[in-house]
Formats: sequence, C-alpha cells, structure tokens
Amino acid sequence: MSTSWQDAAAKKREAISALIPAEWKLDSTPSVQEQVDVTDFIKQYLSEDELAITESDAEQIVGKTTSGAWSAEKVARAFCHRAALAHQLLHCLHEIFFDAAIADAKKLDAYFAEHKSPIGPLHGLPISLKDQFHVKDVETTMGYVGWIGTFEGKKGTGKEKVYESEMVKELRACGAILYCKTSVPHTLMAGETVNNIIGYTHNPKNRNLTSGGSSGGEGALIGIRGSPVGFGTDIGGSIRIPAAFNGLYGLRPSTGRLPYEGMSNSMDGQNTVLSVVGPLGTTAASLRLVTKALLSQQPWLHDPLVHEIPWRSEEEEKIQQLLQFIGESVPKEKKLSFGVMQTDGVITPTAPVRRAIELVTKALEASGHGVITWAPPSHKVLNDTGFNSWVFDGGRDVRGAFALSGEPMAKQVSLYEKEMKEYTASEIAETNVQMRKLKKEYMDYWNSTAKETSTGRPVDAVISPLAPWPAAREARYKYYGYSTWVNALDYTSVAFPVTNVDASIDVKSSDFQPIDDKDQEIQADYDPQVYEGAHVSLQLVGRRLQEEKILAIAEYVGKLIGK
Amino acid sequence: MSTSWQDAAAKKREAISALIPAEWKLDSTPSVQEQVDVTDFIKQYLSEDELAITESDAEQIVGKTTSGAWSAEKVARAFCHRAALAHQLLHCLHEIFFDAAIADAKKLDAYFAEHKSPIGPLHGLPISLKDQFHVKDVETTMGYVGWIGTFEGKKGTGKEKVYESEMVKELRACGAILYCKTSVPHTLMAGETVNNIIGYTHNPKNRNLTSGGSSGGEGALIGIRGSPVGFGTDIGGSIRIPAAFNGLYGLRPSTGRLPYEGMSNSMDGQNTVLSVVGPLGTTAASLRLVTKALLSQQPWLHDPLVHEIPWRSEEEEKIQQLLQFIGESVPKEKKLSFGVMQTDGVITPTAPVRRAIELVTKALEASGHGVITWAPPSHKVLNDTGFNSWVFDGGRDVRGAFALSGEPMAKQVSLYEKEMKEYTASEIAETNVQMRKLKKEYMDYWNSTAKETSTGRPVDAVISPLAPWPAAREARYKYYGYSTWVNALDYTSVAFPVTNVDASIDVKSSDFQPIDDKDQEIQADYDPQVYEGAHVSLQLVGRRLQEEKILAIAEYVGKLIGK
Repeated sequence: MSTSWQDAAAKKREAISALIPAEWKLDSTPSVQEQVDVTDFIKQYLSEDELAITESDAEQIVGKTTSGAWSAEKVARAFCHRAALAHQLLHCLHEIFFDAAIADAKKLDAYFAEHKSPIGPLHGLPISLKDQFHVKDVETTMGYVGWIGTFEGKKGTGKEKVYESEMVKELRACGAILYCKTSVPHTLMAGETVNNIIGYTHNPKNRNLTSGGSSGGEGALIGIRGSPVGFGTDIGGSIRIPAAFNGLYGLRPSTGRLPYEGMSNSMDGQNTVLSVVGPLGTTAASLRLVTKALLSQQPWLHDPLVHEIPWRSEEEEKIQQLLQFIGESVPKEKKLSFGVMQTDGVITPTAPVRRAIELVTKALEASGHGVITWAPPSHKVLNDTGFNSWVFDGGRDVRGAFALSGEPMAKQVSLYEKEMKEYTASEIAETNVQMRKLKKEYMDYWNSTAKETSTGRPVDAVISPLAPWPAAREARYKYYGYSTWVNALDYTSVAFPVTNVDASIDVKSSDFQPIDDKDQEIQADYDPQVYEGAHVSLQLVGRRLQEEKILAIAEYVGKLIGK
Repeated sequence: MSTSWQDAAAKKREAISALIPAEWKLDSTPSVQEQVDVTDFIKQYLSEDELAITESDAEQIVGKTTSGAWSAEKVARAFCHRAALAHQLLHCLHEIFFDAAIADAKKLDAYFAEHKSPIGPLHGLPISLKDQFHVKDVETTMGYVGWIGTFEGKKGTGKEKVYESEMVKELRACGAILYCKTSVPHTLMAGETVNNIIGYTHNPKNRNLTSGGSSGGEGALIGIRGSPVGFGTDIGGSIRIPAAFNGLYGLRPSTGRLPYEGMSNSMDGQNTVLSVVGPLGTTAASLRLVTKALLSQQPWLHDPLVHEIPWRSEEEEKIQQLLQFIGESVPKEKKLSFGVMQTDGVITPTAPVRRAIELVTKALEASGHGVITWAPPSHKVLNDTGFNSWVFDGGRDVRGAFALSGEPMAKQVSLYEKEMKEYTASEIAETNVQMRKLKKEYMDYWNSTAKETSTGRPVDAVISPLAPWPAAREARYKYYGYSTWVNALDYTSVAFPVTNVDASIDVKSSDFQPIDDKDQEIQADYDPQVYEGAHVSLQLVGRRLQEEKILAIAEYVGKLIGK
C-alpha cells in the first residue's frame, strides 16, 4: 500500500523537526514582514559561550579545539543549537544527527585527554554537508520524496544508512564533527533551494531573497552561522551562488581536486561538464583549512577521478606576501594583474553588483595592481554549448526520480518537465569537441593578456559577477550565465563577499538601456527596497587547478576591501 | 571528376616514395623468406658515422648535439637516410619531410654557433611522429584515402598544410628535428598497421609478424633505428603494443599529462576512455628526456586537458637510488614490491611471454624485492565495459571517413563494417558510472595489497603481459585484453623489452589446457619457428599519473635483466 507523496513528505518533514530537542524549539517564528533579516534575531536564543563559539571561523575554532581550549563537545553543542534554530527560521536542514555528533565529539575529547594532541587537522570542527553526501545512520533524499527510505531511489541495496561517501570518511579521519545535512532543490539544477519535503530555503540576511542553490541549505546555514564551514557541489554555480548570496566564501575547485566518490548526484555519468565538490565558509582561511586537510588524506588513493596534486603552499605564499602591504602600494615586482568583467554582454548586472565591481577595482588599483577589461571569447556560445550537457539525457534521470513518488516538479526546475529527446553518442561527441575548442580559445585569450598587463604576465585572476543581482527573488532566477561559464571552462573560482545593498546608493539606473527583453526583465527584478541589506558578492576566477592561488587572492582581496 | 580510391592511394604512395632521394633508394628489397630479420640487414647501406649516430639513444644524441660534438645537420641526415631505408623495407612512413628537417637542423647549428649553447633540451634530436600530428607543409591522412588533400577529411578549412598540433610546436620549441610521420592502421583501432595507402607495416626484427599498432609505423621505424624516439597515441595499447613488439620502451601516460591538443583522431569527442599521447624509444632514458622536455614547456597553459603537474624528479630519484645495488640485494628499507599477473584468466600467454615473466620475477626476487601474485577484480568485466566506448557512435565516424573515398576497410578493423546502433546519452552515462565503479574497485584492490607485501605498502607496480604472444601474426590479432585494461583504468604503463624468442626454449607446452576455443586458437597461433628471434616484452603498470615512478622502475628493471 503506497502513501501519497504529500503524506510521505510531511512525515519526513516532521521527522526532521522531531530531532530538534524540545529546549531548542522556538514557540513561534516571525514572519518575513516582521523580520526580514534574521542573522541578528537568532542571537537572542544563544548563550554568550555559544555566540563566541559560533561566531568564530573554522580556523579560530580549530585553534581552540586542537589546543584544548574548547572541548569538541562544547563546540558541537553550540553549532547543533544554532543549526536547530536556523532550520526553524529558514528550512535549511534535510538530516539532523546531533546525538551522533555529540557522541563523536566526546570521543575526540577522550582522545585529546589521553594523547594531549588532536586526532587530526580538523579536530572538533563541526562541518555541515549538502544532502548529496551519504552519512551512516541517516538518509540521503536529495529533496526527492521518492528517495525517502531508499538508497538513491533503490530499496534493498544493503547500503541504506550504512554506506558513507569517500569524503565523509576523510573528514572523519581529520577529526571533523558531522552533525547535519543541508537542503537542496530537487534535481540540484537550480540556483534556489526548494523541494516538496522542506519547502523553500530563505536567505537569512534578507528573507525576501533566496539562499541560493543548489547548495542553498549550506548557504543559509553558514550564512546564519549555524555552521562554520560546509561542503556543497557545483555544476553551474551551486557552491558559489549560495556562498555569494549569503556573504560567504565559496570555492569551486576544478574537477579532480577533491573527492566526489560515493556521493549521490543527478544525471550521474554525464561527464562533459562534471559537478565538483568544494567548501563554503565564513572566511577564505576556513576554505583553505578544510581543503588542505582533505588533501592531506591523499584522496587520489581513494577516488579514481582525483589527481595527485598535494596542497601547493608555494602557490599561496607568493600571494600571502602581499598582506604586509595593505594600505600602501605593492612593490612593482610583486604586483598582480586582474581582468575585470563588467558585463558578459548578455545580461547587465544590477546596480549593487556594478558597485561591488567598482569597489574592488578601485581597491586593487589603489594598491598598485593592474586591472584590465576582460574581453574574452563569447560567453554566450560557451554557456549555450555547456548547457547541452544538462539535457543530454532529455531529463530521463530526474523525471525517473519524480516518478518514484508522483510528486510535482518545482517551477524552478521546470526545464525537465517535458520529455526531451536524448542526445546520441555522435551528438555528445560533437558537444565534447566543441567544448574543448572553446576551452582552447579561452585559454589562448587568457595567455594573450600578457600583452596588455603591466606585469607582462597573463592576468592572475578575473573578477566577475556571479549573478546579475545580489541574490535572486523567489522563482525569478532567470539567468545563470555568470556562474556557468566557469563550469564550462573547469576553472577555479572563489566567491567572496564585497558589500551589502544600500538602497540609498544602489538605486536603479534611470538611463538603463536594455540589450533585449530578458535583460530588461532581469534589471526590473532589482528593487532597492526589497534588496536592502542583502549581501553583494563577486567571484575571483583562476585558470584550471589554481585552488591555492585563487583562495589566497580571495583572502587578500577580502582584506583589501576590509572584509 | 573523382578519381578511384585506388588511383588516389597509388598516387599518394608514389608521392611518399618520390621524396626519398635517389641515392638512398634500394635497387630491390629482399623478400620475407630471404630476410626475415632486417635490423642488421639495413646496416650495409649506412656509413660508420651514420651507424654511430643512429645506434645512439636520444640521451646520447642530445649529449652530443648540445655540446657541439655532433652537428644537428649531421644527425638529421643520418636518421633521414636510415628512415628512408626503413620505409623501403617495412612501409612505415606516411609523410617524408627530410628537406625541412635538414633546413631546421642548419638553423639550429647556426644558433649553436652564435650562442655556444643549445636552443632547448632537445636541440638537434630527430623525433618521428605518428600520422595523427599535424605538421606544416605536409598532410595528415591517418591512413584514409579520403583524407588525402584535406584537413581531417574536410577541404577548404584554411588549416591544410599550415596548422600544427600543440605538441609539434612544443617539440620545435625544445629544439627537436621533425622529419617524418609514421604509418597507422586506418581508424587507429587495431594492433596491426595496415591501410590502403602504404599497405602493411612489418616488424623489422621478424617480418613474419606485425610491427604492432596503431602506432605501428613508430614501432617499426624506431625498432630498426630509423628514429631514436617518437610519439604515438594509445587508447587500447597503441603505444605499448608497437613498443613491445619491436623491443622498445613505450610510455602510456595517464590522460592529462601530455598535450593531445590539435591532433587528428578517430571518434573525437568520445570521452569515456580517452586516447593519450606518449613516447616510444630505444631506452627508458629517451622517454624521460622527451617527457621532461615537454613538461618544461608548461603544456597546461596551451592544452585545456593537461593538468599542471610538472616533472617530479623526487618520484624517480627514490627508484634511481636502486641502481647502485645491481648485482646484490637491495637494503630492506629500499625494497620495492610488485604484483605479477601470469594470466588474466581469459587468454593464456604463450610460452615466450611466460618465460619473460619468470625471468623478470626471478631477477626482482634475486635483488630482494617482493613479488606477489596479482589477483585483481575481473579484467573481463573491465575490458568489456571499456570496450563499449569504442562503439558508442556505432562506427559512424570511421565509416564516414571510408565513405569519403569508397575505399574498403581492412579486416583488422572489420568491427566497424556493419552499421551499429548509436548509444544514447543514458547508455553512455550508465557506462561512465560503471567505469568509475570498476576503477574504484580496482583502486581498493591495489590499496589492499599492503596487507600482502613485505614492504607494508601497496605494490609499487604490476608486471603484466601486453599481448598473449611476443607479437601478432598478420590478421591474427584476436585479443586486446592485456593492453586495454590499463586504458580502462587510465593507469600509467611502460612497455619494456625482456628477451627474444628462442625456438629451442620457447616450445609449445604439450600439456596446455585451454580455457575455451578462443584460448586454444590464440595459443595455436604461436609457432616457435615463425617467432624465432622476435622481441618479447612486458609492461610495468603503475597507478594513475605515475609517469616518473614507472619510467624509473622500467629503467631499473631493464638494467636488472641486462637490457
């Protein structure tokens, strides 16, 4: 006898809530009108100790837990509490396993007491995970009602609630505390987070807006400091979008740098544009900490798609030297150069995003770095070609997941609603050849900038918007081109926070000349009053496999603009 | 007005021959019966100087050319001469550009005279290229009659005879001398080399046998010392097979190590099992020299699929230390361990291959290294799954190439003769998922050998046959499983010479128990009389991206067995 999808979803939703201890339950939650920004609102429910812990970044936390200043248990409890509150305000959790986290933390504390040293580089650090990671004792629904009580939609696999993804094992080996899995849009193919189980995940800084997607639960949870750092995935912006929308740092590494092995996914086996896994956190240093820790586990020995490239400190040290010159001009031989993309020529960024670009450009120029206009080969062609890979199977995989329960598709992913023709092998091969040519063309353009820069080298990084607005409004995410170009090229990118919307400055431009109707429509969606206070972020893009360098540049630029 | 494919092929064949200077033409060539082995036979046509040059390995040559002891011109002329003779005996060249080579060599000599230093790490080194590389002023036919006078089968692209593949540019930048392109089987999908333009490429050591394929022209040419080192490609064994069959070293790097950018290919855009480019040469040191030189050009800045992994000397130095202990037992802490695969359980290696395995195993054991039996997950499943990628497009691409001229397909590639159904996107995705699972399984097995080895580490390398016999006889290449498993896993492999067939030792085993009819048939193809003198080689297989380590081990093992 089958239950309705509504019943199954409600039961799962209630089961998640039921895992929040009674003492952490809110009697009521304010409406969006009552409380647009809940990032300060949440603090009233937390003790001073809990606030001190949860407002520390991952590096600070590990500094305390590995020296014995904070017990792992105390840290775990504080984040569990804040995450529980966050979920009630934002709908950002798919799985809660606070008890397991606290038990693990106690074991770490016992280890520390016995050995007087941490078990690993992430000893006692709470880490949240997007609901694509398999973690023992809990489910992975990926937002699909039909996946409840299954392993990736299948029953009786023997893996249910037992199997763990490779990275989960590595994080545990490093001493991380796992305590929750965060919400995603069903299919994972959206820049908003919505599904029939937990509903819609709002942006904590401005609940008129989306928390982003597909790692939107991560974005919301870390944005409200219910987690110091977490892992998401990115096939079209899904790490960087929620990082950007929530004022966080988010690293989209190139494929083959971090282990995706053993995670659930949509359209698994599509290997033209691969999804990658990477961290989101409150500081660039947090991302470095967890990335470096994972690489210390030699993931290339456990994930066949990871390249043997250990953490290359020398790549970041060159950049870190610049920190000593903040406030003055950088010596000539240490100068960097940047490409700045004001627009991709398809959709015009809205006022706050344009201001963010100007702010960063000026800060770089004031420090003596070179800035050139980024005028690359067509992003439209690049994005359109890469997009094919999203529909190679004509939606077969995701429609199969919906069919399991009969649940409806959210309009954010309605792309997959109608059955499309599958691509043939020849058509896929043609796309692959085209993608390689476009990558080569872009690479040649990047190399050619050596002729334009003051350093005589090609640009070190490109500054680009991640979306036309600071964040999308519900069901109004109409253009992904500012994030997807990076996936098409498999480049390294770090989203970083720049400023916040100020309705008095970030007014709609009166003389805006739209490129076309879509450009007009997207520009019109920006409303200073609705967006007031929202985080405004950008991305720093590097060539392929430049994680150390781009993280270091993001950290440097963050410090330069006073973040 | 179209000419017949026969006329077009004959015209091209004659045009190739016409590029051999009259003074280098042979009046007649001996029949196979008259002269089975032509490796010594060729020497009568060469001067002492030419012999000294052409029997040197790449490292020795570069030692002379970079110190000014030999002029680049003298070296180029010697190899052009020997290659011209080789082609007349073996049909191994598709393109001849001796004049350009000599002109380039003169420029290098002028450079050296002026600067008193070489232009790059390969200054004056002749390098042969498989006919997939585009080189200015000559064609790339890849053995297709329909590609004559075109760029990859298309006319009027503007690239004809102008465009150069990325690696060609890098080799030139290193100071290499390019002088010929070598034969391939049309489609590239065979372990023999045959096409309607140049016919069949024989094995110089034993013309009863194939020179291998698909880089068979490279194998034959380097085997007879008409080239010191060259580049081939490998999607199922195409570098290692011709290296093995000709007593050479051949490196199949993992994908993303060396630049394939801008080369012609079959079924381009199939990206489940990628073809890779790598060197074949007379010594392991030759392969190191050219690989290291290419990496010095930072190919990752010019080929979007190359990973930024510079040459890692420390990986080879650990192994090179062992050279001091040859003839005695290696100190405990420096010992290596090896997995030895006697058979893959599908097809039984023939007597000389089994003897080669025994010879290497004994040499390793005598030096104190550990040897365990390699008992991995099913190679049959691995090979069968990987094989799907060869027919994803149902043969559409290669049939299109044959259709251009109407020429017939050689029976060696008759797999593509009948039209097959194209795979759908979902079917390809399923194959990709399966491949990833098989890779993970194999990786886990490799890791698990730490429990079996005396070093306490997983094995350092695996010793495996490359084919059931020392080489295939014409049109009898019936089993590729010993080479294709490496491609399926994307592992690093180096083919290395072990011994030669001795009909008096390598007798057919009288008590052979065939696994099935195919096993029986393949075993029966081995005839000691026919195979007398043939090279017998094996491969050393390492994990993914272990080029430095496996090359160093191959060099060490070669020295250990007195090669």
